[in-house]
Amino acid sequence: MYRVYGDIQSGNCYKVKLLMSHLDMAHEWIHCDILQGATRTPEFLAMNPNGKIPLLVLDDGRHLAESNAILNYLAAGTAYLPDDRWPWAKVLEWQFFEQYSHEPYIATARFIAKYLGLPEERRAEFDAKQAGGKKALAVMEAHLANNTYFVGDAMTVADITLYAYTHVAHEGGFPLDEYRSIRAWLARIANHPKHVTMDQPG
Amino acid sequence: MYRVYGDIQSGNCYKVKLLMSHLDMAHEWIHCDILQGATRTPEFLAMNPNGKIPLLVLDDGRHLAESNAILNYLAAGTAYLPDDRWPWAKVLEWQFFEQYSHEPYIATARFIAKYLGLPEERRAEFDAKQAGGKKALAVMEAHLANNTYFVGDAMTVADITLYAYTHVAHEGGFPLDEYRSIRAWLARIANHPKHVTMDQPG
Repeated sequence: MYRVYGDIQSGNCYKVKLLMSHLDMAHEWIHCDILQGATRTPEFLAMNPNGKIPLLVLDDGRHLAESNAILNYLAAGTAYLPDDRWPWAKVLEWQFFEQYSHEPYIATARFIAKYLGLPEERRAEFDAKQAGGKKALAVMEAHLANNTYFVGDAMTVADITLYAYTHVAHEGGFPLDEYRSIRAWLARIANHPKHVTMDQPG
Repeated sequence: MYRVYGDIQSGNCYKVKLLMSHLDMAHEWIHCDILQGATRTPEFLAMNPNGKIPLLVLDDGRHLAESNAILNYLAAGTAYLPDDRWPWAKVLEWQFFEQYSHEPYIATARFIAKYLGLPEERRAEFDAKQAGGKKALAVMEAHLANNTYFVGDAMTVADITLYAYTHVAHEGGFPLDEYRSIRAWLARIANHPKHVTMDQPG
């Protein structure tokens, strides 16, 4: 059975939980409190020298880090990851977009506001995240104005990747009122019968 | 024939050039000067709404952004991308590591120093990149102390991904003298008969 080290309130970790729910994958979830140093222990660093969650551990002890690499690994051979080279590359394109142009703004702003309580000494950094976050949301909104999902006509790991932090973007100071296509897409994801919310206990 | 919009001095673009050299892929290289706004024109934004290079354009007009997605697309079915699900996921793990934990520090510091000439108003940002860059290099050094390449026993797109900005890390204020295993690995990549340097004309 898979083991997952994570914090369900972290979008990067929640992605893994959400895909595992869609795929009915049994797993053990081990909660990690990063603010208490759970990812800085020698035991954890031996599994992921980069000191980050989520981390997937296989039955034989092999481990895999990086949320979007984990999603690809778990979804391989399922409908959530296209077989054909072109749509599969487009899934990766959106996943790299998420890690470079979306997460560092929206997730980091949310971390500063929600986890740290928006301390005064990080207010300037929080404010500096707004432009990049809005740009990422504009790119998504334009795509979703003409598409039901990010790649093809059905949900893939590209949608799971981008859902994770977008559906809580307001917690980072990004209200979604003006993003109509994003809100319709969020509702499509949330209404799937296999959906689980971020409030699930691990 | 493939078209690539890029700037060979950008590591993200150079990755594509390097893989195409290894794979003997004919292509047209269209130089883009981002400081002159080449990625902000309506024509370019119609191809990549996120306004970034590199951008790959196929014969039929389809386009693909995100350097590491392009590498996966081009390398599919070749020895540079493992077929098996596990080593392939490990390639992705290193590629997401590169975009999240390496590039934002080392490439951004290099951009500030080399492209912008380290202006005084960005000195604090430049300095703030040092810790993250050194952490990424330490993760790489530890891995390469026990491994010839990043995944498996031969060069893959994981190596091409990480080579791009690591071999010019000194231009971002990261001298590599103390990273012996990284330097040995850089030499292995550079000595490949299909290697091309960053000084190639497009």
